[in-house]
Amino acid sequence: MSENGYTVGDYLLDRLAELGVTEVFGVPGDYQLEFLDHILAHPTLRWVGGANELNAGYAADGYGRLRGMAALVTTFGVGELSAANAIAGSYAEHVPVVHIVGAPSKDSQAARRIVHHTLGDGDFDHFLRISREITCAQANLVPATATREIDRVLSEVREQKRPGYLLIATDVARFPTEPPAAPLPRYTGGTSPRALSMFTAAAAELIGDHPLTVLADFLVHRLDCVTELSALLSADTVGHATLMWGKSLVDESSPNYLGIYAGAASEDSVREAIEDAPVLVTAGVLFTDMVSGFFSQRIDPARTIDIGANQSVVAGQVYAPLDMSAALEAVTAILTERGITSPALPPLPVRTHTDPPGRDAALTQEALWDRLSEALTPGNVVLADQGTSFYGMAGHRLASGVTFIGQPLWGSIGYTLPAALGAGVADRDRRTVLLIGDGAAQLTIQELGAFGREGLTPVVVVVNNDGYTVERAIHGVTAEYNDITGWRWTELPAALGVPDALTFRVSTYGELDDALTAAAATPDRMVFLEVMLGRMDIPPLLTELAQSASDANSN
Amino acid sequence: MSENGYTVGDYLLDRLAELGVTEVFGVPGDYQLEFLDHILAHPTLRWVGGANELNAGYAADGYGRLRGMAALVTTFGVGELSAANAIAGSYAEHVPVVHIVGAPSKDSQAARRIVHHTLGDGDFDHFLRISREITCAQANLVPATATREIDRVLSEVREQKRPGYLLIATDVARFPTEPPAAPLPRYTGGTSPRALSMFTAAAAELIGDHPLTVLADFLVHRLDCVTELSALLSADTVGHATLMWGKSLVDESSPNYLGIYAGAASEDSVREAIEDAPVLVTAGVLFTDMVSGFFSQRIDPARTIDIGANQSVVAGQVYAPLDMSAALEAVTAILTERGITSPALPPLPVRTHTDPPGRDAALTQEALWDRLSEALTPGNVVLADQGTSFYGMAGHRLASGVTFIGQPLWGSIGYTLPAALGAGVADRDRRTVLLIGDGAAQLTIQELGAFGREGLTPVVVVVNNDGYTVERAIHGVTAEYNDITGWRWTELPAALGVPDALTFRVSTYGELDDALTAAAATPDRMVFLEVMLGRMDIPPLLTELAQSASDANSN
Repeated sequence: MSENGYTVGDYLLDRLAELGVTEVFGVPGDYQLEFLDHILAHPTLRWVGGANELNAGYAADGYGRLRGMAALVTTFGVGELSAANAIAGSYAEHVPVVHIVGAPSKDSQAARRIVHHTLGDGDFDHFLRISREITCAQANLVPATATREIDRVLSEVREQKRPGYLLIATDVARFPTEPPAAPLPRYTGGTSPRALSMFTAAAAELIGDHPLTVLADFLVHRLDCVTELSALLSADTVGHATLMWGKSLVDESSPNYLGIYAGAASEDSVREAIEDAPVLVTAGVLFTDMVSGFFSQRIDPARTIDIGANQSVVAGQVYAPLDMSAALEAVTAILTERGITSPALPPLPVRTHTDPPGRDAALTQEALWDRLSEALTPGNVVLADQGTSFYGMAGHRLASGVTFIGQPLWGSIGYTLPAALGAGVADRDRRTVLLIGDGAAQLTIQELGAFGREGLTPVVVVVNNDGYTVERAIHGVTAEYNDITGWRWTELPAALGVPDALTFRVSTYGELDDALTAAAATPDRMVFLEVMLGRMDIPPLLTELAQSASDANSN
Repeated sequence: MSENGYTVGDYLLDRLAELGVTEVFGVPGDYQLEFLDHILAHPTLRWVGGANELNAGYAADGYGRLRGMAALVTTFGVGELSAANAIAGSYAEHVPVVHIVGAPSKDSQAARRIVHHTLGDGDFDHFLRISREITCAQANLVPATATREIDRVLSEVREQKRPGYLLIATDVARFPTEPPAAPLPRYTGGTSPRALSMFTAAAAELIGDHPLTVLADFLVHRLDCVTELSALLSADTVGHATLMWGKSLVDESSPNYLGIYAGAASEDSVREAIEDAPVLVTAGVLFTDMVSGFFSQRIDPARTIDIGANQSVVAGQVYAPLDMSAALEAVTAILTERGITSPALPPLPVRTHTDPPGRDAALTQEALWDRLSEALTPGNVVLADQGTSFYGMAGHRLASGVTFIGQPLWGSIGYTLPAALGAGVADRDRRTVLLIGDGAAQLTIQELGAFGREGLTPVVVVVNNDGYTVERAIHGVTAEYNDITGWRWTELPAALGVPDALTFRVSTYGELDDALTAAAATPDRMVFLEVMLGRMDIPPLLTELAQSASDANSN
């Protein structure tokens, strides 16, 4: 509380705390400095400053993926626009982030004053209009309705799992108000009993005595339905796969785990199990170019139950309104109640890990991701940037309890470095493992020191392949626009604020092995690996997708 | 030309070349890789890759300020949004930058495909709508009208001196077309003969036999009227000043140069000369908070001729349409034709440089900017970031032929580092001098290596005062949100790609003196100075403005 007593700013912070936020990310600016005082003074919130706003936005996204809610504070114009790419990414990938923007006082706005961080035309709504394109709800707060509008926006963020935007002028933030009298109200009426019963009947008829196969993806995670999904997968012998986007959503060590489905780019065993399933449940699935092998999925609607956020479809018939959780529970009940056990699945194909090469063998992408996936232990949070890291790791089975984070729809390179900071802050008991290429890491490198400041000890793997290899795979193999400036990577942790980091530059399999062994033995320090790989050593999955991307651009 | 013959992309590039662009800034992405091939193949254009899109946008802005036209290429969604802050800054500060965005093919768009770098909702116009808020003209190119639309947008950028936006899908870029048949047409009718003659009569009457005083600012530079302004200042004994925004617009070594006008924050001699002038010409002036001492200017309209971009005002009466150049020439003619010489101005106040402190004296802001301004030589391009650097340098007179670049309206910290790259590329014969605080430099540091790659040898001065001192001055003197992660600054040039940089960490006046002497003697290498200053050592002008900013936020 400020000297003015309880304020609109305090109300907003209390609501964020109610939603489970304990850290607020951002960069200070003079239109929100006083509001930041209230964060520092709040009993359960803590400020985590970013080196710039894009990074702070990415960090909030990483935090929101683990916590289910995140908050970002930037200043008017300059700050919020720098974060726009991060916010749009949270929108595309369904991550709830409350973007709070400090604005000039309502007095300045009413007088159309030409103040700093504006376009100089007296119009203070330019950036509010921009926010409409990339957030699910927006409010330009005024004293009379501020608390009601805060509740509306936060409620939408919570329900839609997408970012919201709150513009809060200096004098509105300090306006007196009362604390929330009741918890933030929830949506009602997400499921119609009639729709549910009709869905259940249709699903039961389609399923009959058939074994069930499930293809689940990221929206199950975003909509907090992982428990309901797990129950479904346990209700019978249910073969199941995810797309790359939802990787680690299910236990990949389960005997019923089929692998990653990616349309024509899938392994044959996975593709056949999904596409030839007698009855398929798709849950929380969105087929985008990069996760579907460029729209090469072959799913027969007549044999499919598609469970979406607010509606489900059985053999082409839509049932709505129907929440994902209710639909998943209904299918689980169908399996449980029919009282049969489907036959065991054929044993998993032999693990695809190749025999490790000799210690002196030059590193390859294949050996790198093999060795790295073996090194992961339960609790690890793996962030793989949208280049060779993501597509290299995607096909590898992860240990139970490992969380995998990528960004295959939005695909903003550099995202994972600050997102790993946010993930680390979100759960300090889990060690983050960051996998990123050199080209991508250059976009957001300044956040490296924040890991040290926050006392986090990630394993950072920078794949040095001398430029934008993911772009080379698509077009311009040797074109100079795919080159980057050469950096001395292993000097960076110390220079940027992590003097005690353990650093390695590895070129052979033996050196990688040693470095990862040291990483496992050193949980209390950042371990930073520069991994030397060939420019055109590209994971097979990426080669295939890159060719499709190139074809799509050439049509 | 591609194998397809001459394309829409080639047409765009030829128009850019016609407008004086020789370097194109940007970051590659798969929706524009093929277009980039055409840049590489163009006879007079060169590609300058940025480490990220915000930096590339800032670099384009710095280039545009010196060249009068700049071009930036980013990819759809992720790339363009990362550059949004830079583009908005160019809009606010009247810098012509053509923002070219590579988009998914028109086929993908028509099918509403959920492809990477989109929000996943099949709507491909989100970012086009965003661009409307921060550019002066936009086009979503289609084959049938592409060349006409390119001409329209480029023409607006050239005339308005503000950014424009061109969305160019992969298949539109490669669509066959013919080269431009004629130069890009210019606006006509910018000046009405009747308005000009009425303006001239009114101005002549107001001026009479009075001595004339001129307050000129940044728009004179942006609208290419520096020659016309210089002619006016030479036509009689004309006392003249600029605001901080237009610093270095006029020769600051002239005996008729009064200094920087900043409303109540001006030196008394400047304030009196401007505010008490019998007749004042204001040319290209926009009073924003930070350049007017928070709107404390006292200009009597009855004694003022205000010359704007498209209209002029004499004693409250508007004359339009009337181009700035025509109005300036008319006033010059009035002075020339009246055949009198106004009395010489009183001699300049003694130069404000204080006596240099002893060699062992700890450095202060005052001594730093004094010594730095003395070190500048004709040809230098000085970029001062919008913190203590800008406000510290603003009051110091610059040698003739020095160009000063700041961003006092948009005020995006970190801007100057990539902008210095753009300025260096724009004119390789002029050495850039970058003045930036540690907090600001952290936002954009990854561009440092590009100076080395481009063969540029700037003098880089990082003011290490342990955080956001400009924010501390406004609010939160010791608040943790104004702290930053500590870096080992002098290790960064070598780590980030400039191994031959000369680096210094200076804490005393003698060390600064030695470093600047070495900088002058080493024009062929980057010279990087980390200057140690106290957290709360703040230039007097900034102290005054910060207090006003704090008051404005508290109202």
